[in-house]
Amino acid sequence: MSEIKPYEHIVQYYETDQMKVAHHSNYIRWFEEARVDFFEQIGLGYKECEQQGVMSPVTAVSARYKTSAEFYDTVVVNIRFSKYTGVRLYIEYVVTDKATGAVRCTGQSEHCFVSSEGKIVSVAKDYPEMDAKIREYLEEEA
Amino acid sequence: MSEIKPYEHIVQYYETDQMKVAHHSNYIRWFEEARVDFFEQIGLGYKECEQQGVMSPVTAVSARYKTSAEFYDTVVVNIRFSKYTGVRLYIEYVVTDKATGAVRCTGQSEHCFVSSEGKIVSVAKDYPEMDAKIREYLEEEA
Amino acid sequence: MSEIKPYEHIVQYYETDQMKVAHHSNYIRWFEEARVDFFEQIGLGYKECEQQGVMSPVTAVSARYKTSAEFYDTVVVNIRFSKYTGVRLYIEYVVTDKATGAVRCTGQSEHCFVSSEGKIVSVAKDYPEMDAKIREYLEEEA
Amino acid sequence: MSEIKPYEHIVQYYETDQMKVAHHSNYIRWFEEARVDFFEQIGLGYKECEQQGVMSPVTAVSARYKTSAEFYDTVVVNIRFSKYTGVRLYIEYVVTDKATGAVRCTGQSEHCFVSSEGKIVSVAKDYPEMDAKIREYLEEEA
Repeated sequence: MSEIKPYEHIVQYYETDQMKVAHHSNYIRWFEEARVDFFEQIGLGYKECEQQGVMSPVTAVSARYKTSAEFYDTVVVNIRFSKYTGVRLYIEYVVTDKATGAVRCTGQSEHCFVSSEGKIVSVAKDYPEMDAKIREYLEEEA
Repeated sequence: MSEIKPYEHIVQYYETDQMKVAHHSNYIRWFEEARVDFFEQIGLGYKECEQQGVMSPVTAVSARYKTSAEFYDTVVVNIRFSKYTGVRLYIEYVVTDKATGAVRCTGQSEHCFVSSEGKIVSVAKDYPEMDAKIREYLEEEA
Repeated sequence: MSEIKPYEHIVQYYETDQMKVAHHSNYIRWFEEARVDFFEQIGLGYKECEQQGVMSPVTAVSARYKTSAEFYDTVVVNIRFSKYTGVRLYIEYVVTDKATGAVRCTGQSEHCFVSSEGKIVSVAKDYPEMDAKIREYLEEEA
Repeated sequence: MSEIKPYEHIVQYYETDQMKVAHHSNYIRWFEEARVDFFEQIGLGYKECEQQGVMSPVTAVSARYKTSAEFYDTVVVNIRFSKYTGVRLYIEYVVTDKATGAVRCTGQSEHCFVSSEGKIVSVAKDYPEMDAKIREYLEEEA
């Protein structure tokens, strides 16, 4: 299990809104950016998964906003796999300001797994290597 | 209390992703589109609120995805105020396909109210007319 | 040749930036919204074209910004086919404010046509009906 | 005059469209990302400019698309100041694929300069230090 480098994102001008902060919908996109990067880092990158014919669409997402990120701030997204059933995966996110450590947003996403034909699959049954990898990085709370 | 016209949105090409469906982050934006329209319809439009010096930022948002919307589908967003404390407002969303009625997504957002200086305010105490209007449209579940 | 209804778009909150105006990149998206709507109105809608196996990707786009659109303004996008070679189509856009008529932005896009396999095709040679339709709506400047 | 590091961007999933390529509107946003980074690198970063009370809005933008960027490709954006009048600045962009060097897109933007009150200013007359810096990086074609 290799060390994970937290994902960093610089808030872009086009991500601000007229309240002079990053629009709340962008955090959902930063979750995705960080998730893609995380999967890549643990060896389950998009291309590997696509070759194996399995995708993990978002079935639910939530975010709780604590403080606001502003233009050109660097935000850090920390991720952990918080729950995994072999069929569904739950991921948690904490977005902090790189400069101050202030928590900007926390969130969760829920994923199922589908084959390239769009059928729901059991990773535990059909993709034992991917299953093992996910369990390796699983950090369920006690 | 006037009849509310549900909000309609046509899925744009730039909203699709390479799974050939509307990207999940867009639903969070459609919630906002529908919310702005709803507030406008009930007489609490953005300009009225800004003149009174009160804004209602999103403090939390969640979405559960049921089925996928595709390019050029018309989706209908139904909204209701599901809970209101005088300080916080909870809004629920149901996004359906206009042609078939199939539910695409359900969601919730939570809002506080802030003055133009960014201070949290109590609508119940400081904005009695707005408070009355919100209560008029409140549809808490039994 | 039927009357074309100009396309209308309400500026959304998530489209504003911290200058309190619609971010300039959105106009490129509004061009697309209006273009899709225009093609639909003249009987060359996305589904029809897809069934015939022909797409028209953007090969170039430009915009000149005159004045700023703000949140909840309705903008009107007028479109005309300004040039057509049988292989390439040039479209012009004028975005105005619905309330005042003030010009917000003018623009142009250039399109080629490709088959579902991604090969460049000549509409003039391979799709005579589509070719006739485009020529019907062509409004080249004298 | 310091060495400029070209800007890199990883194509995000939410930037793809149903043609399985980065939607063309994103290039306009990547131009902005690269421009902000470039200004930062040459010592004319957003915060410095804001403190001096001068902004440089986009008055025109254009892009020509050569080949398509796909999900998770790294694109490199090279920038140069191609023309400067003391009142208007013209910037050129070349977006290439990092892995292959293939040109994805070329573009140009035009900027004026405005004071914090929104009045058009002459950098040459009113901001001599900024004027000198821009001229230092000016690379007009022979």
